[in-house]
Amino acid sequence: MINEQYKSMLGAKSVIRELSEYATARGKEVGYENVFDFSLGNPSVEVPKEFTDEMIRLLQEEDTMTLHGYTPSLGNPLYKEEIAKSLNERFGMNYGPEHIFPTTGAAGAVAHAVRAVTRPGDEMIAFAPYFPEYGPYITGAGCKLSVVPADTSSFQINFDKFLEMINENVAAVLVNTPNNPSGIAYSTATLQRLADILREKSKEYGHNIFLISDEPYREIVFKGADSPYVSKFYDHTLSCYSFSKSLSLPGERIGYVAVNPACEGADIIVPMCGQISRGTGHNCPPSIIQQAVAKVCSLTADLSVYETNMNIIYDTLVELGFTVVKPGGTFYIMPKALEEDSVAFCKKALKYDLVFVPADGFGAPGFFRMAYCIDTEKVERAMVALKKFVKEEYGK
Amino acid sequence: MINEQYKSMLGAKSVIRELSEYATARGKEVGYENVFDFSLGNPSVEVPKEFTDEMIRLLQEEDTMTLHGYTPSLGNPLYKEEIAKSLNERFGMNYGPEHIFPTTGAAGAVAHAVRAVTRPGDEMIAFAPYFPEYGPYITGAGCKLSVVPADTSSFQINFDKFLEMINENVAAVLVNTPNNPSGIAYSTATLQRLADILREKSKEYGHNIFLISDEPYREIVFKGADSPYVSKFYDHTLSCYSFSKSLSLPGERIGYVAVNPACEGADIIVPMCGQISRGTGHNCPPSIIQQAVAKVCSLTADLSVYETNMNIIYDTLVELGFTVVKPGGTFYIMPKALEEDSVAFCKKALKYDLVFVPADGFGAPGFFRMAYCIDTEKVERAMVALKKFVKEEYGK
Repeated sequence: MINEQYKSMLGAKSVIRELSEYATARGKEVGYENVFDFSLGNPSVEVPKEFTDEMIRLLQEEDTMTLHGYTPSLGNPLYKEEIAKSLNERFGMNYGPEHIFPTTGAAGAVAHAVRAVTRPGDEMIAFAPYFPEYGPYITGAGCKLSVVPADTSSFQINFDKFLEMINENVAAVLVNTPNNPSGIAYSTATLQRLADILREKSKEYGHNIFLISDEPYREIVFKGADSPYVSKFYDHTLSCYSFSKSLSLPGERIGYVAVNPACEGADIIVPMCGQISRGTGHNCPPSIIQQAVAKVCSLTADLSVYETNMNIIYDTLVELGFTVVKPGGTFYIMPKALEEDSVAFCKKALKYDLVFVPADGFGAPGFFRMAYCIDTEKVERAMVALKKFVKEEYGK
Repeated sequence: MINEQYKSMLGAKSVIRELSEYATARGKEVGYENVFDFSLGNPSVEVPKEFTDEMIRLLQEEDTMTLHGYTPSLGNPLYKEEIAKSLNERFGMNYGPEHIFPTTGAAGAVAHAVRAVTRPGDEMIAFAPYFPEYGPYITGAGCKLSVVPADTSSFQINFDKFLEMINENVAAVLVNTPNNPSGIAYSTATLQRLADILREKSKEYGHNIFLISDEPYREIVFKGADSPYVSKFYDHTLSCYSFSKSLSLPGERIGYVAVNPACEGADIIVPMCGQISRGTGHNCPPSIIQQAVAKVCSLTADLSVYETNMNIIYDTLVELGFTVVKPGGTFYIMPKALEEDSVAFCKKALKYDLVFVPADGFGAPGFFRMAYCIDTEKVERAMVALKKFVKEEYGK
């Protein structure tokens, strides 16, 4: 019989997708250049030429059967080796290729990491604001997700609430830094305190609490931001990465899980991920993409536009009197709406062709998210519309 | 805590992988050209030039952000449309793009199809001989797999046993034709009878029993074989396909689920697959591969070598007195071993550098599988070794 659980999920239409569809429809009416669509987190910078060149070289020079043949079930050895090397050089880690499990993007990475270090019925903790897809990843593994409310003054971790909520059923804690939707990077102090608590509570409960770090925005960090490598702070860390943002390759679904060599089960977690794949039909990410990314995994696209855009938007928001924490990275910013109901606020903004996303679904009611992965020229025009909107609707 | 279920799966080493590793090690000793490795089903023919050309064209001509950007969550529209058109033209179906869900190969396709039309606790039936990975796909969805014993005289369906085993808890039946490991294609008569039984039992039990058809070998069919399109026989069919074999792209993990337009839930199964992906972190197959395959989805690599190899092997096996059913397709053949214990038989064959796989794990004890996706010249030399082996060990 048709599975009622998945059928029932069809009703819940994504707010982001609805807004994005509205923006597309409105764009047809007034010209897409006149719709200020801040709804979608789709990278807006060119893929590095080195990636394209390497893809073409592989297609022109390599034997097609080797190039497109099955990769070993735990991944292409070159890809694993190059990633380990790159992480070791950049973050002072000591990964071997055996600690790297290639996945279809960060979604695949988190889905595998969760299954590896939890059992059905376990609890996992995430911190608001958070990426709503964590819900399906965690319930899909049979676990319960508990969300620690946001510290809205800084969007670092609300440790008081965390300490109230942590308990012996918690198998793993999930962090996302730099953060979607707030743009905030967890500081050295935050990660140090988090690690101290996890060590203390692991001892108290008699089992290690794992830390799953979802970090697809790791390479988009702004000047002066304190955004250290999460796994440096805590041994039992699984780092989940995607090249979606750093190489502007979101559609190619290429990422990995990197298991800290000092993590409990470090020698078996990658092979276990291989077993987890068998049940979900995940398999390896595509062979040619693994091979091409292996050659460029330490490069990034030119990500500077995101910082340029952030500064323009942040300055305008402050000038207009918005409450907003300055992002440390990503291509998101999350100001407080000018009225309590952020949905009403975002609806009013639509009249000015400004497409914002209410952050209620991210666990930050009253706030809204702007994804500024768009051309700077458009950001500048959007600020004119934003000023008009705020003046006319809120008299500021 | 480390998930014990996945940890416990690490012990069970794959027989195929062990044999393949043996073959590689032995190859280093005596030269790989002297090891007759029939263990692995890795396509051995060139990828069509049209695919490579289209990949290079996309990389050289398309905007990189569009080319590598997020695809819609239910797949690239062109890919869905071209596949629907191709299936309609070739098999007289009437799929629309809304019936096609792109997946990471046939593994992803079966994993989604199973979740869409079963509920945890349901029973699924497959027919021996069968691909052992069906086990994890089905238990991964929380279902129970029951396997109907083989009809060893024809390797068509053993209908007497099937009728004994089918019951009202059966949510779906899984077929694989042309079949791995037997190489047999289900005939028109077999599929007609299967469909009749499913219709009758669906009526009797008051719910439709779904048919999941795993058909990655659909395009490798030999002269004179009766190998019709499964979904033509039964409305409630989900066809699972991979381009691994037809385009020699196993490492690129590109396939789909095609939902019969007359199937119960035909309008919601593809969107449900999108929801299923959220929980497993599957997401869409890679953007560039979807776009390139869209252009070549009706082509195949030159698959004729598989038939050439099959005829050489089949004739030799018959000449040597093996009991064997002639394959209708694939690149497999599954003769009866010359002693009851096929594991012992395969071990003895290793002395002659012949690497065969005991078919016990495929639900056909006493038989062994040969994967003949290797050069014809090597097949011919292998037949000399096979004759020597049979003469010296079994006096034939």
